[in-house]
Amino acid sequence: MHQTIDTALGINLLHANQAGADHNREHFDEWGITCLNLMSSPGAGKTVLLEKTLAALQGQLNMAVIEGDMTTELDADRLRQYGSPVIAINTGRSCHLDSKMVAGGIHRLQEDYNPHQFDLVFVENVGNLVCPAEFEVGEHAKVALLSVTEGEDKPLKYPIMFQEADCLLITKLDLAPHLDIDLALLEANVRSMNPDVTIIPVSAKTGQGLDQWFSWIKAQLKVPQALIG
Amino acid sequence: MHQTIDTALGINLLHANQAGADHNREHFDEWGITCLNLMSSPGAGKTVLLEKTLAALQGQLNMAVIEGDMTTELDADRLRQYGSPVIAINTGRSCHLDSKMVAGGIHRLQEDYNPHQFDLVFVENVGNLVCPAEFEVGEHAKVALLSVTEGEDKPLKYPIMFQEADCLLITKLDLAPHLDIDLALLEANVRSMNPDVTIIPVSAKTGQGLDQWFSWIKAQLKVPQALIG
Repeated sequence: MHQTIDTALGINLLHANQAGADHNREHFDEWGITCLNLMSSPGAGKTVLLEKTLAALQGQLNMAVIEGDMTTELDADRLRQYGSPVIAINTGRSCHLDSKMVAGGIHRLQEDYNPHQFDLVFVENVGNLVCPAEFEVGEHAKVALLSVTEGEDKPLKYPIMFQEADCLLITKLDLAPHLDIDLALLEANVRSMNPDVTIIPVSAKTGQGLDQWFSWIKAQLKVPQALIG
Repeated sequence: MHQTIDTALGINLLHANQAGADHNREHFDEWGITCLNLMSSPGAGKTVLLEKTLAALQGQLNMAVIEGDMTTELDADRLRQYGSPVIAINTGRSCHLDSKMVAGGIHRLQEDYNPHQFDLVFVENVGNLVCPAEFEVGEHAKVALLSVTEGEDKPLKYPIMFQEADCLLITKLDLAPHLDIDLALLEANVRSMNPDVTIIPVSAKTGQGLDQWFSWIKAQLKVPQALIG
């Protein structure tokens, strides 16, 4: 459960979360890990994107996933079949991951593996287009997903997510022909919130755009790719 | 902004919200109004469902809408063309409507109209499958929407919304042929969370299921429909 807080208490809580996020990022930096925080509405396709990404990049990069869900390990189990470690975090009644929860995941990575071995850690956040955008977890970049089924107006109505994103994936592109969606207007609405965000339209079903997504990931790596493998 | 709270503070905040919700409901009861709280992920189709509903039931019922969005009056403007009063509430950084915000909407209905004239008030919540389910606003019933594009697993992963719902609309049924969705499994997952919920599959695009939705609405009315109009 959570509550809207506009007071000094709220500012203190965000400060505490930020301090924890900075501490998490120091760990990642020490180990040469790039951390990407994936966020979207429920059902926009975070998990299937990760499935395609783990399958495509295994052998090239050493990856792990910190998987946030209110309940169940359904998504964690889907991702485990690709061979990378997947740490499941159940948030209970909380609608987002915070830096303390992710610190718990980092400690489990540290206990069970040599953390220096990893190049890339994905954090899959709870499905929510509002709250995760406000809670840094120690990531180096924020990746937002918006499905074409959600409509062109969402960047205007849920501005914080789109303002905070470093990369925006427009997902389920294969469904666009069955919808009354104006993709140019959608992109213009994203740009009005965040002129510099990288926008990549993708379809996990057809594979469209995935190569561009993989290239973007590689450009974020702390350790230059030429040195890997 | 908001924060996860598991403490006595959180319990007090929920108690205060509940007291406000009970007070709102007393107003609705006094005026013979039924209030329905519509909740879903962003883009599941709350606004287009309300458009179809206002268009179909105008002349039969006297309706108003309390429209919650973080920013903009985009949805409120879409609904205003159907002739019913639409009170827009911008929640700012808050990811849900609470009973105090809705009380503000009720007071505006009371100031600008004779509230006894209304049969039905729809509250359209902020698009979020997690948080709105925990904050009663004075509604008589909770209506959740889940789009077929969101996947069968969502009732298991976001249990509170599905446990709290009195009616679940499975929306965008027209897209099902283009998806790998198992509707029987989806319904079974919903029933595992909430055996008694009314489930109505609909498509706002084709009109499928809308008559069943309108019948469900009429069965919720405080004033028996035979007495109306």
